[in-house]
Amino acid sequence: MFETLKRLLIGKPLRNDALSGEKYSVAMGLPILSSDAISSVAYATEEILLVLYPVVGILAYNSMIGVSAAIVGLLVLLTFSYKQTIQNYPNGGGAYIVAKENLGLIPGISAGAALSVDYILTVAVSISAGTSAIISAFPSLERHRVLICLLILLLIMLGNLRGITESAKIFSIPPYAFILGMVTMILVGIVKFKVTGIVPPPPSNAAIATQSSVTIILLLRAFSSGCSALTGVEAVSNAVPNFREPSTKHAQITLMLLAFIVLIVFGGISVLASIYKVAPVAGKTVLSQIAMGVFGQGFMYYYIQVTTAVILAMAANTAYSGFPMLISVISHEGYAPRQFALRGDRLSYSNGIIALSTVAAILIVVFKGETHLLIPLYAVGVFVSFTLSQTGMFMRWVRTKEPGWVHKAIINGMGALVTGVAVIIIGATKFTHGAWIVIVIIPTLVKAMLKVKDHYNAVAKQLRIEEDELATIDLDKELYRNRVIVPIASVNRASIRALRYAKTISDHVTAFNITINEEEKEKIEKKWAILNTDIPLVVRNSPYRKIVNPLIEFIESEEYDMKKGDMITVVIPNFTVRNMWHKLLHNHTRMFISGELLKHKHIAIATVPLKLKDDNIILKDKK
Amino acid sequence: MFETLKRLLIGKPLRNDALSGEKYSVAMGLPILSSDAISSVAYATEEILLVLYPVVGILAYNSMIGVSAAIVGLLVLLTFSYKQTIQNYPNGGGAYIVAKENLGLIPGISAGAALSVDYILTVAVSISAGTSAIISAFPSLERHRVLICLLILLLIMLGNLRGITESAKIFSIPPYAFILGMVTMILVGIVKFKVTGIVPPPPSNAAIATQSSVTIILLLRAFSSGCSALTGVEAVSNAVPNFREPSTKHAQITLMLLAFIVLIVFGGISVLASIYKVAPVAGKTVLSQIAMGVFGQGFMYYYIQVTTAVILAMAANTAYSGFPMLISVISHEGYAPRQFALRGDRLSYSNGIIALSTVAAILIVVFKGETHLLIPLYAVGVFVSFTLSQTGMFMRWVRTKEPGWVHKAIINGMGALVTGVAVIIIGATKFTHGAWIVIVIIPTLVKAMLKVKDHYNAVAKQLRIEEDELATIDLDKELYRNRVIVPIASVNRASIRALRYAKTISDHVTAFNITINEEEKEKIEKKWAILNTDIPLVVRNSPYRKIVNPLIEFIESEEYDMKKGDMITVVIPNFTVRNMWHKLLHNHTRMFISGELLKHKHIAIATVPLKLKDDNIILKDKK
Repeated sequence: MFETLKRLLIGKPLRNDALSGEKYSVAMGLPILSSDAISSVAYATEEILLVLYPVVGILAYNSMIGVSAAIVGLLVLLTFSYKQTIQNYPNGGGAYIVAKENLGLIPGISAGAALSVDYILTVAVSISAGTSAIISAFPSLERHRVLICLLILLLIMLGNLRGITESAKIFSIPPYAFILGMVTMILVGIVKFKVTGIVPPPPSNAAIATQSSVTIILLLRAFSSGCSALTGVEAVSNAVPNFREPSTKHAQITLMLLAFIVLIVFGGISVLASIYKVAPVAGKTVLSQIAMGVFGQGFMYYYIQVTTAVILAMAANTAYSGFPMLISVISHEGYAPRQFALRGDRLSYSNGIIALSTVAAILIVVFKGETHLLIPLYAVGVFVSFTLSQTGMFMRWVRTKEPGWVHKAIINGMGALVTGVAVIIIGATKFTHGAWIVIVIIPTLVKAMLKVKDHYNAVAKQLRIEEDELATIDLDKELYRNRVIVPIASVNRASIRALRYAKTISDHVTAFNITINEEEKEKIEKKWAILNTDIPLVVRNSPYRKIVNPLIEFIESEEYDMKKGDMITVVIPNFTVRNMWHKLLHNHTRMFISGELLKHKHIAIATVPLKLKDDNIILKDKK
Repeated sequence: MFETLKRLLIGKPLRNDALSGEKYSVAMGLPILSSDAISSVAYATEEILLVLYPVVGILAYNSMIGVSAAIVGLLVLLTFSYKQTIQNYPNGGGAYIVAKENLGLIPGISAGAALSVDYILTVAVSISAGTSAIISAFPSLERHRVLICLLILLLIMLGNLRGITESAKIFSIPPYAFILGMVTMILVGIVKFKVTGIVPPPPSNAAIATQSSVTIILLLRAFSSGCSALTGVEAVSNAVPNFREPSTKHAQITLMLLAFIVLIVFGGISVLASIYKVAPVAGKTVLSQIAMGVFGQGFMYYYIQVTTAVILAMAANTAYSGFPMLISVISHEGYAPRQFALRGDRLSYSNGIIALSTVAAILIVVFKGETHLLIPLYAVGVFVSFTLSQTGMFMRWVRTKEPGWVHKAIINGMGALVTGVAVIIIGATKFTHGAWIVIVIIPTLVKAMLKVKDHYNAVAKQLRIEEDELATIDLDKELYRNRVIVPIASVNRASIRALRYAKTISDHVTAFNITINEEEKEKIEKKWAILNTDIPLVVRNSPYRKIVNPLIEFIESEEYDMKKGDMITVVIPNFTVRNMWHKLLHNHTRMFISGELLKHKHIAIATVPLKLKDDNIILKDKK
């Protein structure tokens, strides 16, 4: 039943060789890889305004244009930097790989940790912002905000557990629809303003400015918030091998197009916000207010809201291709739990997908699906990985000194410097707003990753057998003296089967029974006598109603006479019932007993299946 | 580590014989068993007003006195009814036992189902009402309502997992403190009114009456809501054996005292509410408004709020002694999953406690901790069990015809009749407000309980061996042909240990390995050659990256030549790591493989422990 449900929800499993069919053209790769970067415009302008507007009132609009220009400048620089990364890392140049290769282990896994945090926040922020877009259009949904976020998350998770091919096909249209909507809105918005010549009225809910001029600190805070517009720019460089040949070239074209679109859309929205003098209010996103101002509450308004929500959901989806792949690489190298290295059904990295969804869900619940509460956490991780990646590229040029390296080093060096400064600005101005969480978490993750690697090293070292030792091993020598204990609840078919199995694997079998009172003891001993076997029955009273302790005590008692090197096998029958509900009806003593006994290195557990027939068949026989 | 945490939170396990020390005197039993009944005054009066006030405005107060009087009359009748139950069921006369013994199986388990629902709702309602008391005193906590409810629930759950003795000691004081507070408030409230002679002003937020007179339907609805005051009256009769000898007598005295206190407090609060013309408003309970009116916002006001919250938490606690005991009895008779029959650590029925807490937590979250949303669900279950229990007693007298039976039958018969009518009133007037949920759930539970019993019967029938058959069984005959398969990931110490164990239990051992490519295959075959053993190594390619299917295919292939009656043992090594975190770092393939393989009735699983040394020791060796 569970299997059927699983198949229904996530489709049939794919074979290993099905991987190759899933490569991007530019037209296909652009929408899929750009959604994260492009969708940020849905909240970046608003975040800038949220910093400026409450402090300086309508003065905010002029400053916003300046801050946006600075961010666009940073975008251009990053684009050229990452173009070089793509050129040099045709197998995918995620910050983890670039930093690890050029800067060493610790910067590498720091980048890995920063990226992981980034991916998780991409999911949480994008879904929260998408929900805000929906709520702006349908305000009555406000009280279900968290629920809507979680439903979107669930949908994306299930989609990803189904696999990549289908995602790609489904997800290439909405970004184009969104871009079309944005460009139309920017054009109409500007033309309308120029043609009518009427200056839109100032916001009705005009805030009272608490400062009459814009301070540097305020601009830096606004810049930090706006930097969330640049998240996702690195997506293309991570995904180079996913492009069709020549993949490097296709990836570079995609990156340039992406940057151009972000520039136009982010710049355009900032300009519109300042023309229409939109003030950030609760329950209506800045983008939805602009759309309302430009189009009125008609078809185009809802078109903008819906495409915004969809592209934000897709941005969350970007993290679902990035994170599981990243953690799988890290896991292959031993720095993350091995479960993440496996590809699950349908070639998706199921464990990574589930882990990502779980942490994002927790963030959404804790921060109540409020985008602006999550933003301070978001940008730090992204810019740490930008900085590490660019620094890595810079060091690469300095080290290799290949032709034209000075020019290239300057580009990446500037990228590193500027993003590094951005990290400091963001960390400092947003520290108390939540950035501290990320600043604490990244080093903690790094520490944990090193610990994980240590553990796997220790295990591998213990298990390793060198070839010369291997040649000396004779499996037939040094066999264990195998003795068997069968705990029985009563003398029934299950225990008979277990005893028979025990006899098959050893000549030294003991039956073991726990009673609470004398009456029970007499009853089972009487039945045992009727069975008339040479297997001894040991009965113990257990006031704690526990089986494990008395069993261990018995094994270690003189009566049992255990010798060094003995292996004791405890045989436990396991009821196999067809009906899933029936499973719940049996004591899971087997599981608990096994867990406890396996802590002892000389006790093995043998589980003997006993298939129960269907209730109906049995109960019909009775009549 | 987990064990330590568990001990810290729930204390040391108790022995069976520690049970006897925990008997109640009247002075001790009264507070513990009465908290449910007495605490209902914290919401019952408010629920009556919530029905009347919005419809008829200040006319509500006169009607309320009448409705309250009817409920008090019902209380007196119930008290005499239950006094007879106590007399005749010295071992505890819960509705389940009384109905099952006198009315038959279906009424019996219906009572069991109704009681279970009642216990769960007692927890949810009492905790919600307790939280309302806290919020009335500290209105800023309003937005954390659900969280506060869940914290209280958690606290009570942990307390109960620790065991009964301590609960009793801790919990005998607050009810007396609450009763003292209530009686003081009633006296001061009435005296103040009489002395000053000033009529308190009508509520400032006076509702506009939509009806100018009180209809019968309205009175019935008010009566239904007010009936929640009577929940918990049956607690004493369930707990007769918990009293010191003579337990019947002690229980009867306790019941009479309890009824007297409910009468005084519930009646008194209703009178005060009508004197002070308190209107139900959101965020301030009626009780807190009365306290404010009587005492002003001083020490006594907070005293009333705190003792109310505490006694409501204790009322929730009552369900924690009742529910696990009830479900354990039902489970012992086979109508509930066996897990509930076990007494856990510290003599508490841990599974029952955890189940109760979980369902109550769900109710609290779904109904957002709002008492009045839960009330319609509450009273139905309680009154169904009242009716079944009283009808059972009535039938008992009719059947036994013992001396004086007519008199006794009249009392219980009237009890049955009146509570039966109450069920119909509550069900009809509250049907659309939530009572339908309970009306649907009780028969569903009954059906499920019968199914559970069927399953256990079917299993027992399959396992049973009659004595004559038992005598014919010869365990040495018909042994299985035991063959062993050892799945190995590579040739290392873990696989050597598993192979050695396999050799110990069988002469027919096969090693089995899964590869993804040819390279891996050559590597393991080379190592295998060095090992130089007579055990054959079978290597299979698995494009699905799964081990179970290829293994089953191999076992069923001609190559393996399985015969009917063969038992195949699959040997799996199990890493035992000390550190809990390290457990997470190993693929849990063992668990998944076992689960799948055990579905085949001819495949047993042997788990061989392999204790890993501590990381630090291993890694130190390296240096």
